[in-house]
Amino acid sequence: MNAEIIAVGSELLLGQIINTNARFLSQQLAELGVNVFYHTCVGDNPDRLKEAIEIAEKRSDILIFTGGLGPTKDDLTKETIAKHVNKQLIMNEEALHSIKLYFERTKRQMTENNKKQAIVLEDAHIFPNEHGMAPGMLLDTEKNKYMLLPGPPKEMEPMFLKYGYQAIRTLLKEDDVIVSRVLRFFGIGEAMLETEIEDLIDAQSNPTIAPLASDGEVTLRLTAKHKQMETALSLLGETEEQILSRVGEYFYGYDETSLMHELIKQIKEQKLTIACAESLTGGMFQQEFTAVPGAGVLLKGGVVCYTNEVKETVLKVRRETIEEMGVVSRQCAQELAENIAILMNADIGISFTGVAGPDELEGNPVGTVYMGLSIKGQPTRVEKLNLGGTREAIRVKSVKYGCHFLINRLKGNQNAV
Amino acid sequence: MNAEIIAVGSELLLGQIINTNARFLSQQLAELGVNVFYHTCVGDNPDRLKEAIEIAEKRSDILIFTGGLGPTKDDLTKETIAKHVNKQLIMNEEALHSIKLYFERTKRQMTENNKKQAIVLEDAHIFPNEHGMAPGMLLDTEKNKYMLLPGPPKEMEPMFLKYGYQAIRTLLKEDDVIVSRVLRFFGIGEAMLETEIEDLIDAQSNPTIAPLASDGEVTLRLTAKHKQMETALSLLGETEEQILSRVGEYFYGYDETSLMHELIKQIKEQKLTIACAESLTGGMFQQEFTAVPGAGVLLKGGVVCYTNEVKETVLKVRRETIEEMGVVSRQCAQELAENIAILMNADIGISFTGVAGPDELEGNPVGTVYMGLSIKGQPTRVEKLNLGGTREAIRVKSVKYGCHFLINRLKGNQNAV
Repeated sequence: MNAEIIAVGSELLLGQIINTNARFLSQQLAELGVNVFYHTCVGDNPDRLKEAIEIAEKRSDILIFTGGLGPTKDDLTKETIAKHVNKQLIMNEEALHSIKLYFERTKRQMTENNKKQAIVLEDAHIFPNEHGMAPGMLLDTEKNKYMLLPGPPKEMEPMFLKYGYQAIRTLLKEDDVIVSRVLRFFGIGEAMLETEIEDLIDAQSNPTIAPLASDGEVTLRLTAKHKQMETALSLLGETEEQILSRVGEYFYGYDETSLMHELIKQIKEQKLTIACAESLTGGMFQQEFTAVPGAGVLLKGGVVCYTNEVKETVLKVRRETIEEMGVVSRQCAQELAENIAILMNADIGISFTGVAGPDELEGNPVGTVYMGLSIKGQPTRVEKLNLGGTREAIRVKSVKYGCHFLINRLKGNQNAV
Repeated sequence: MNAEIIAVGSELLLGQIINTNARFLSQQLAELGVNVFYHTCVGDNPDRLKEAIEIAEKRSDILIFTGGLGPTKDDLTKETIAKHVNKQLIMNEEALHSIKLYFERTKRQMTENNKKQAIVLEDAHIFPNEHGMAPGMLLDTEKNKYMLLPGPPKEMEPMFLKYGYQAIRTLLKEDDVIVSRVLRFFGIGEAMLETEIEDLIDAQSNPTIAPLASDGEVTLRLTAKHKQMETALSLLGETEEQILSRVGEYFYGYDETSLMHELIKQIKEQKLTIACAESLTGGMFQQEFTAVPGAGVLLKGGVVCYTNEVKETVLKVRRETIEEMGVVSRQCAQELAENIAILMNADIGISFTGVAGPDELEGNPVGTVYMGLSIKGQPTRVEKLNLGGTREAIRVKSVKYGCHFLINRLKGNQNAV
């Protein structure tokens, strides 16, 4: 069984809003094992919507519509579908009641056109809207299934999770269990990773292997399907093992984690504290660190030391270091890391100094970055990077490499950098 | 002339990424006066891609593809189009050279499959990729026009702005000049803003007025069209004047600026320096500040002081303040702002202390934020905010309010906070 997601709304075609609904529903459908082969977006125009429906009916079993269920004249999703599949539109008393309650609760006056939202397709299964007004619907005809959902994500998402998801499982009448797992890699490019596991990708069927690259990271999504959960899981496990036996040194975590989350986990487990001196990254490492709820207590504090003056006066980098080696140097990174740990009374000191661009600095090309890592009781190490991309990309990658190196140090994996 | 935006990539259909490209291109095309009637998204499958092309050719003049130009076997946009329109694929030496340089610059090893990215459609006009590897293309056949752009937004957006936009203007052979201007507002909600200028929005035709809200800001995009540039500009000017006469107090800048950019402009013009003490914002203010090229020299430095220990030892907040008033207090914000300016030897000290959540702190509810502003020669002021939303939203809004208050202080606009 396969699905097509059809967003209805001219505001999408004008670029006023982003179609986050397509993403959300795609994730949900992937989890349900329903293939999504197309997303379509069409404006508030009955003729073009009708055409989009006709095209989708030929190539997809379930048509999932988002948007066009509102109170205004522009909203015509159910009207167009009703006409197309030859169904009546009828007033749904429950929905009408709930809309009235909604207005009472929010102390606003209900206008006549709001009643339009309580009109539904005859024979459709109705999904109550617990976060707005327009109810959702599922119409099951002999040929196709039509699911109608409201456009605002804060209404659509809870409605789908509570009613739509189960409705699709019922339609599927299927016992197969689908399990999925994302493997996350850092320090290896997409092309290089795929080269390493090319034969596995070519031979894939169950599980499927889907690579994705973004911001210097690569992920592989493995999805297995089987009547028995146990077998599905062991299919996943076997493929994962094959992959990790080849590129395991770049693997850092599963599913929705991030390098920063993994680093925080390590620091927490080892009951350590950290402090950070940031020159080119300008606070980005600490901002990401403290974005994780509860992580703040592990970060004693840090200094943003963009200027040489602050490196010298606050972070006590020796004047000779700055004058003789420059601030973009191994020695400066080392002193920054050691001194920030002392200043903040932390177990770990990490430092970033380098050239984010657009101009080179002290004769070092854009993308030259030194990272110092000082861990209590261990010799300080400095890593040098040559990064590409925009100023922003260089800063983002510096922070990721910082996490990557530190994770490996904390795991005692000294060479895997 | 109308366009269809076709995103190619199974990662979109799996919900792994969001189609921000469709939004960006829709905005650009709206500005160019090109109607977009459909967005389509199709996976990395040559048969389904071919079908999507055939459908799009019938209903749209320009087909704009994003994605599928990368080095892997999955990437097959140009291969499918070449076959479909009966064109050869040829190696583009310039693109190949630029890919080799990219690898040299980033000191990574180029694998064989990366060469695939330099292969282009014969007879196509080539767009260099200045932020990645795969070049873009425009193929103009008798019946349709095909524009191929890379998938990563950080490559696609600058490429479109530099090459694609003008290429479409050339295709349009249109004399009408389109001018567009974005007015940016902070401190007023979208609904309130729209109420204030409702009659102008209702009566709009030339210029058009498109409101958009995000992250506590509201923007209005004005777009005017006329044979004469001068007339188009004066149409824009008149509408802008009408709008600002009503809501000018919330206006802070034009087009792609941000509150941070406006703040940096003020600090630069007044030849000042700044330092920052960040508790709940955890480095976010400084990270955004230093994200602007050249702004780093204005930021002497700063301290992230999540822990009370660092507030006391490094930033010299008095123990009595912490014990008697708490760290979420007017007094603490004041000391932080004054002391960071002293420590970093800066003209301005700004501080953020408060509760980002998820838990309340010292009896203060989530969203309570104090911001201290210390400007050399002026009495220190502290502003209190009660913000709503998630942890991240509270941090983001704190930074924006910090910019907003400081801009007003620097402009001598003491009361407009």
